Amino acid sequence: MITVALAKGALLKDSVRRFAAAGLDFAAVLEPGNRQLMVPSACGTARALLVRNADVPVYVAYGQAQLGVVGYDVLREQPLPVAQLVDLGFGGCRMSVAVKASSPYRRAADLPAHCRIASKFTRCAEAYFEALDLPVELIHLAGSVELGPITGMSEAIVDLVATGRTLEENGLVAIEDLFHSTARLVGHPLALRLDGGELQAIVDRIAAVSVAPVPAAVA
Amino acid sequence: MITVALAKGALLKDSVRRFAAAGLDFAAVLEPGNRQLMVPSACGTARALLVRNADVPVYVAYGQAQLGVVGYDVLREQPLPVAQLVDLGFGGCRMSVAVKASSPYRRAADLPAHCRIASKFTRCAEAYFEALDLPVELIHLAGSVELGPITGMSEAIVDLVATGRTLEENGLVAIEDLFHSTARLVGHPLALRLDGGELQAIVDRIAAVSVAPVPAAVA
Repeated sequence: MITVALAKGALLKDSVRRFAAAGLDFAAVLEPGNRQLMVPSACGTARALLVRNADVPVYVAYGQAQLGVVGYDVLREQPLPVAQLVDLGFGGCRMSVAVKASSPYRRAADLPAHCRIASKFTRCAEAYFEALDLPVELIHLAGSVELGPITGMSEAIVDLVATGRTLEENGLVAIEDLFHSTARLVGHPLALRLDGGELQAIVDRIAAVSVAPVPAAVA
Repeated sequence: MITVALAKGALLKDSVRRFAAAGLDFAAVLEPGNRQLMVPSACGTARALLVRNADVPVYVAYGQAQLGVVGYDVLREQPLPVAQLVDLGFGGCRMSVAVKASSPYRRAADLPAHCRIASKFTRCAEAYFEALDLPVELIHLAGSVELGPITGMSEAIVDLVATGRTLEENGLVAIEDLFHSTARLVGHPLALRLDGGELQAIVDRIAAVSVAPVPAAVA
């Protein structure tokens, strides 16, 4: 039985679509009334674990799921021993440094030494400012990071930016990108090594529909 | 201007009620359409920050809020320099060790050495098992911790238990409590020390309605 860890939330619908293209139908996880965390595929040969974004690499690293779909941001923030197999292309967003629109700072390196940076992604932020050789004080927040500069608690934030609407609504502007993030297909290294071909077939089919999609009008 | 950090979610309604009894009306935060994270009180002399449970002590510790309401579980998991002022009594739950109902283990100390424990509260769990002198491998999860034993990833979990319904639905049983948790009024130590009497008056009024409430029929 193949187990696939899928992240609840923004990535779920596209994740289900990709696995459908590879022959595994997990549409049941999208049903509004679904409360189950472990959902069998329509064909009964696989099952999906519905977990938080940050927990996908955990289930894959411990081998409880052989495959998983998770944002690259999570893989950067919490490095775990999983194999990155396919860049799925969807769920695009940027990990950005943002400041108040009224702030004089327009590059991360302009920020004053020892200033405070609020983030849900303090490891990503730490590595970035270390590479800039700029000592900063990191404040870990669990949500609504934009309140950091609004309340005056922090000079800047490091956060995921998709449309930029949340920043704009809160009077903030992104001044620099740490990296671009998309959804990734990940796998349990040992499961892939011991695979009799079944896992690789799924990976190949997902890769085929993920890489360089041909626009419908041209195809 | 007094700023109060309130936790979104289960504690919010009762938190608003306690501050109302102390003369600060934050009922606007309960309006279903509210999207604001910073909400003024009806009288205009104070404001509420609507933040995640785990972020309440952060805003209070950094002095962005002078007062806050947060579960004791958060204060145990993430010790920050805030003053614990009043046990508000509501939001009662237990931090418990739970195993599969079919598990042979009935006490935490019975668990096999080096077994895996999944939890959102890995610091609490770590301290508890260290005190038992039982080495365990902690797995941090962001949510749906009950999947740990169900998938076979962990022998046990450490999680908050309120009604016990989630455990029951997932075939788990609580076998031992680490501690009991309730909502706490916390304060910024320096703000309290420099207070001209205004903060203390609020704390006293909240304490008066929180300690040993007299049943209406008897009063």
